[in-house]
Amino acid sequence: MLMVTPQLRINSQRLRIDFDQLSNIGATRQGGVSRVALSNEDMQARSWFADRIEESQLSLRDDEVGNLSGMLFSRNLNAKTLLIGSHLDTSPNAGKYDGSVGVLAGLECLRTLRDAGVPLPFHLEVINFTDEEGWWQSLFGSMGVTGMLAPHHTNDSKQDNGPFRAALFRAGITHQDYYKAKRDVNSLVGYLELHVEQSDRLERHRHQIGAVTRIVGRTSYRVTFYGEAVHAATNYNKKRDALQGAACFITDFHSLPQNFEGGMVNCGNLEVQPTGVTIVPSRADVTLELRHADPQTLLQMQARTVEMAMHCGSCYNLRVEVEELLHRDVAYMADAIIETIETVCEEQGFTHMRLPSFAGHDAQILAPFTPSGMIFIPCKDGISMNPKEYTDWQNIENGANVLLATILKLAERA
Amino acid sequence: MLMVTPQLRINSQRLRIDFDQLSNIGATRQGGVSRVALSNEDMQARSWFADRIEESQLSLRDDEVGNLSGMLFSRNLNAKTLLIGSHLDTSPNAGKYDGSVGVLAGLECLRTLRDAGVPLPFHLEVINFTDEEGWWQSLFGSMGVTGMLAPHHTNDSKQDNGPFRAALFRAGITHQDYYKAKRDVNSLVGYLELHVEQSDRLERHRHQIGAVTRIVGRTSYRVTFYGEAVHAATNYNKKRDALQGAACFITDFHSLPQNFEGGMVNCGNLEVQPTGVTIVPSRADVTLELRHADPQTLLQMQARTVEMAMHCGSCYNLRVEVEELLHRDVAYMADAIIETIETVCEEQGFTHMRLPSFAGHDAQILAPFTPSGMIFIPCKDGISMNPKEYTDWQNIENGANVLLATILKLAERA
Repeated sequence: MLMVTPQLRINSQRLRIDFDQLSNIGATRQGGVSRVALSNEDMQARSWFADRIEESQLSLRDDEVGNLSGMLFSRNLNAKTLLIGSHLDTSPNAGKYDGSVGVLAGLECLRTLRDAGVPLPFHLEVINFTDEEGWWQSLFGSMGVTGMLAPHHTNDSKQDNGPFRAALFRAGITHQDYYKAKRDVNSLVGYLELHVEQSDRLERHRHQIGAVTRIVGRTSYRVTFYGEAVHAATNYNKKRDALQGAACFITDFHSLPQNFEGGMVNCGNLEVQPTGVTIVPSRADVTLELRHADPQTLLQMQARTVEMAMHCGSCYNLRVEVEELLHRDVAYMADAIIETIETVCEEQGFTHMRLPSFAGHDAQILAPFTPSGMIFIPCKDGISMNPKEYTDWQNIENGANVLLATILKLAERA
Repeated sequence: MLMVTPQLRINSQRLRIDFDQLSNIGATRQGGVSRVALSNEDMQARSWFADRIEESQLSLRDDEVGNLSGMLFSRNLNAKTLLIGSHLDTSPNAGKYDGSVGVLAGLECLRTLRDAGVPLPFHLEVINFTDEEGWWQSLFGSMGVTGMLAPHHTNDSKQDNGPFRAALFRAGITHQDYYKAKRDVNSLVGYLELHVEQSDRLERHRHQIGAVTRIVGRTSYRVTFYGEAVHAATNYNKKRDALQGAACFITDFHSLPQNFEGGMVNCGNLEVQPTGVTIVPSRADVTLELRHADPQTLLQMQARTVEMAMHCGSCYNLRVEVEELLHRDVAYMADAIIETIETVCEEQGFTHMRLPSFAGHDAQILAPFTPSGMIFIPCKDGISMNPKEYTDWQNIENGANVLLATILKLAERA
């Protein structure tokens, strides 16, 4: 049984210096950051992170999928490991907070515990997961740790992954060795991740901390409408206009959440062929995704999406193909961790609420593998993946302290 | 006054051989042709056409914008010139008939008249216009002949025209010299063009020949919707989704012809940024065009289009920009030529009708410059700009004979 120091707090100023330095790596003119996975900027951020780990006298660790960690070892060398982390990669011209906050707060917790000389019943590992955002393969690093990667994620059987392999090679990652990154499930205590909410529920409810209950399931599709390329002056009843079918579908599709409370949808892209202004489009590819916190409702939304696509296709006499690009199951956070976060909030006087995460996170990959939990802090106007992404510094300090106290509570019980 | 040989007919077999040879240049697997302007295939077609002109003992002529002609001279060296032609260039993977029929039938008319030794009161010139289809600059060749080209058509003030200039250079065309291609309006008698209809009115009305009354006016726009790139999981009321605005607009826009009888519209392309499936699109560019045979109605359609774009933009809280890409006025064929075509049809026993052309042609550039006329032949199912584009050989033979007889009637009156 560990002796807890209830008043132990992270060093906010030290964390702030890290945050400001990291925000400069890949900074964009609009005030955001671009550190797409395995880019020069991402490599620079990793190198910077490795320096912080070493200067903090923590041990550096990396694995076969490029995850980079700092280790604070328990005196018990046979102890299990508690993972804390997130990711340093970003989408292009995204915000400074998404991912970074989780990694840097994790590092700060390790430093605080080391400085305080708190003996730990587990090893504590702050981890930066490779390519959470999916520039190449979403959640690549966490999938590596949990053994979910397969050869097709890097070979060319599904698509041309040559540039991905080249980027891995440049980062010193031998893609064939991905399977060696899998951790022994018995070696882990669990996983904790601090993150900005990326939606505005905490802000609207004026809560300081969110205890994530689950991460929504997500399915993405490519819906392709095939018509016929004919001259724009062709008689109307002879036209089979793929773009009109796609436009009809996009409008219908966005009405889905009206019938499925809590559902979220997005069409992120539409590509047209042949593209000439005097030619009726013969092909339109729509890429979209659906999210819901309830697996059954997500399935119903998927079925309705396919129906809508077929209906819009038939209205314009088009052939329709629907290809599933990705599916992620609903991921459940561990009850014990949710309750621990709530207890910590009560003890520290933070207002809090339970909420599902609409956005994907490494925690959703870890959750079926090891008890996992996520701590959310408010996100101004709910805007993220945008240079405008913002949270008050006080929120980051609060979140880091909740993370620290949660680690200590888990240590108490270990 | 010329002595007419009413029974003079073109040599259908000789024309057929030409047609089949030309169809092989740039033939595609789908049975269409790709001879985009100034491409290797287009250059090969020009070279082939030049050989046909020379082997027919006609005189070869070219000009500073790459138009290529065969000349059958009048004995009166001071005579004016009657132009007959169309274009050998095509859209990518388009049909075999669009353009080719007009050029080859013109050549066949010259050969037939030369073989028959018919004395002509004007020089007869069969002309292949450069880039009718607009791979680089639509109607480039006819605009050159009529003096409508300006420096901005080839320099980089409006867009990067470097590749266009390179293609012109490779074809032996010095772009600065475009103005030298302008013909003296007093040197011309008129312009005749035979073409497949590219719509199905002749087919539906079971008419063999169409006498084109006018070519519709055409306006094309780029409509850009600006929203905000945020994470797909952002609260719905915070989303400003450019693609939803564009989809709303595309659907509305295609309803325009319901309120403007005889109007035709097309959206040929839509481009989205940033394209990630988990990011709400911040920008959507729609390129579209409107056609109408009545200039006032076209103006009303244009105004309504802009209103619709603004309305859809406001529904999704988007900024909207509308840029006019191109405007072509309604072009009127000369009454005397329309009537001559009708007289010829009556004399030769072809069923016929007057009709406007929904598609653009070199004749629309020539019409304000010199008395012009177009002869349409049926187009199967109204499908063109597609490998399926088809017309019975008998239609081509009919059209070429109407062209020949129209030339002879104009010669009678000259």
